Amino acid sequence: MKIAVDAMGGDNAPKVIVEGVERARDERKDLEFILYGDEQQVRPLLKSDERITLVHTTEQIEGDEHPVKAIRSKKQASMVLAAQAVKNGEADAIFSAGSTGALLAAGLFIVGRIRGVDRPGLMPTMPSMGDNPAFVMLDVGANADNRARQLQQYAIMGNLYAKDILGYANPRIGLLNNGTEATKGDELHQEAHKLLAGTEGINFIGNVESSGMLGGAADVIVTDGFTGNAALKATEGASRTILHELKHTILNSGIKGKLGGLLLRDGIKQVVAKFDASRYGGAVLLGLKSPVIKAHGAADSRAVYYTILQIAKLIDNGTVNKFVDYFSTHDMAAEQGKTDEN
Amino acid sequence: MKIAVDAMGGDNAPKVIVEGVERARDERKDLEFILYGDEQQVRPLLKSDERITLVHTTEQIEGDEHPVKAIRSKKQASMVLAAQAVKNGEADAIFSAGSTGALLAAGLFIVGRIRGVDRPGLMPTMPSMGDNPAFVMLDVGANADNRARQLQQYAIMGNLYAKDILGYANPRIGLLNNGTEATKGDELHQEAHKLLAGTEGINFIGNVESSGMLGGAADVIVTDGFTGNAALKATEGASRTILHELKHTILNSGIKGKLGGLLLRDGIKQVVAKFDASRYGGAVLLGLKSPVIKAHGAADSRAVYYTILQIAKLIDNGTVNKFVDYFSTHDMAAEQGKTDEN
Repeated sequence: MKIAVDAMGGDNAPKVIVEGVERARDERKDLEFILYGDEQQVRPLLKSDERITLVHTTEQIEGDEHPVKAIRSKKQASMVLAAQAVKNGEADAIFSAGSTGALLAAGLFIVGRIRGVDRPGLMPTMPSMGDNPAFVMLDVGANADNRARQLQQYAIMGNLYAKDILGYANPRIGLLNNGTEATKGDELHQEAHKLLAGTEGINFIGNVESSGMLGGAADVIVTDGFTGNAALKATEGASRTILHELKHTILNSGIKGKLGGLLLRDGIKQVVAKFDASRYGGAVLLGLKSPVIKAHGAADSRAVYYTILQIAKLIDNGTVNKFVDYFSTHDMAAEQGKTDEN
Repeated sequence: MKIAVDAMGGDNAPKVIVEGVERARDERKDLEFILYGDEQQVRPLLKSDERITLVHTTEQIEGDEHPVKAIRSKKQASMVLAAQAVKNGEADAIFSAGSTGALLAAGLFIVGRIRGVDRPGLMPTMPSMGDNPAFVMLDVGANADNRARQLQQYAIMGNLYAKDILGYANPRIGLLNNGTEATKGDELHQEAHKLLAGTEGINFIGNVESSGMLGGAADVIVTDGFTGNAALKATEGASRTILHELKHTILNSGIKGKLGGLLLRDGIKQVVAKFDASRYGGAVLLGLKSPVIKAHGAADSRAVYYTILQIAKLIDNGTVNKFVDYFSTHDMAAEQGKTDEN
């Protein structure tokens, strides 16, 4: 299998991208890569070009560009070339740590949507302190607005992903809402609740609140992109702020505190590791015809490596084809007596 | 000044309510209380009835009742009687740790809205690790749906509150959004951004993301009730989960870890105290004609005490009257060329 890699996207590109790719390449003999990037920068970083093809380009999409315009005007951008390779069948999946908006645009306009999916959803894997080690959540920001039937599509894809990639036999699907009672929420979430409760083949456990996310309230948290973005960023921000304050306090609490910190170092490392999402890989843009995966902009080589492993599993398992199969045999609009698109 | 207290609301009522009230009463000679609750339960808890009038009632609103129906049918419920006392001018403010929905209903239908405020917003005070020690945020769930001009009203009230109660000279007002750029968000948040940018007398700093909440991104975070609820609960849930895991790890990391925990005890206590919101009191329902304050259902006597002090300050400063004055001299609908209500 072959992965198209945007070597220039992300805060620490191309260095960490090349390092992560090479680590995965050295471990997995079945992996091949096409790296799109500036040859002058990328070539010197490569230990070897075994199973790595380097395609030179100097064009690149910046974080502050308008995603759709950038995709359309910068035909030689590393991200655009990677997407083009997947569209042309030269590669099986896209990796990028670049702009999420641009990657979504490249996914939509170059790779294309799965028929039956209105809007792709961005789905990270997060650590859970519940019975299962992790949960997925979508959409966390590919969309600023979602409709109820899009949330239903997210539930279906999230369910298949949790089974296929996380290995959960019967993932618990929860709807992120402002209370657990079935009647809670605004119109969108009340309608989504009804749709999910009536969807066959998923284990819908009802509404969940964002307070329970890290505690394992659900294996798949279904949410609109605006709320999901706020809940995810609040979780990340709170975790970061607390761990930072803890570190700061230990370093500034005199000899006694420092000694305590030293003795507790392993324990604190364990806690930090437990809340580290990067070992689960990147965020998947679910609903596109091929796997399109976004690593965090601040990803280090380890995060890149884990994301490559995640992509390999997605390709191996043919997970995206399972989405395609599902939506080609379930005309959800017709089932719901609706014919509206988008 | 006199505070009407729902002695029966909350998980640990009436015990912690009475304890908190008495502590505040003993410290502040200018405070008087009317406690509404079951005399058989409340009377034995009272150390003294100095400046405390106990009004007996056995009716009570449960958390799972429909708020509006409960308020209308249970005329003798402790919360309803407290609201009635404020409406009749017998008391200056309401304290309750009971159902938020019911308290909102009691506020709306008994106390009444300030003219010019479409929908009251629920506003907690949260600790901040930024330059200022705390920030406020509204609405965090009084509404499942909000309109842009309601967010503008929240900005105005939050601004006055942050000046009057937190003592910030020029509070930084931020709009919670899915990115910092002015064009970010769905239609509601794009419109709210424009309204806030055009509102005189507030220091609008633009969009803020929920990742920056605890870090001090803004002094007043303006948000719709659905998103605010998700961001607040995610923050609370992540903080709780991390501190729990840390404690669990220390207790299970052998002699070395336990010793480290012992040495670090003061430091960890400091961190926990830094993230403790209860010293700032309860959540205020802004937009009602009198102060209506909700303590956390799980509040202990210390949280009740701090909430009483917060209420005393609100009464002392006449903060609610400043809201009334503002909205009576600013016809915001007319200023914006709009005449629609709600």
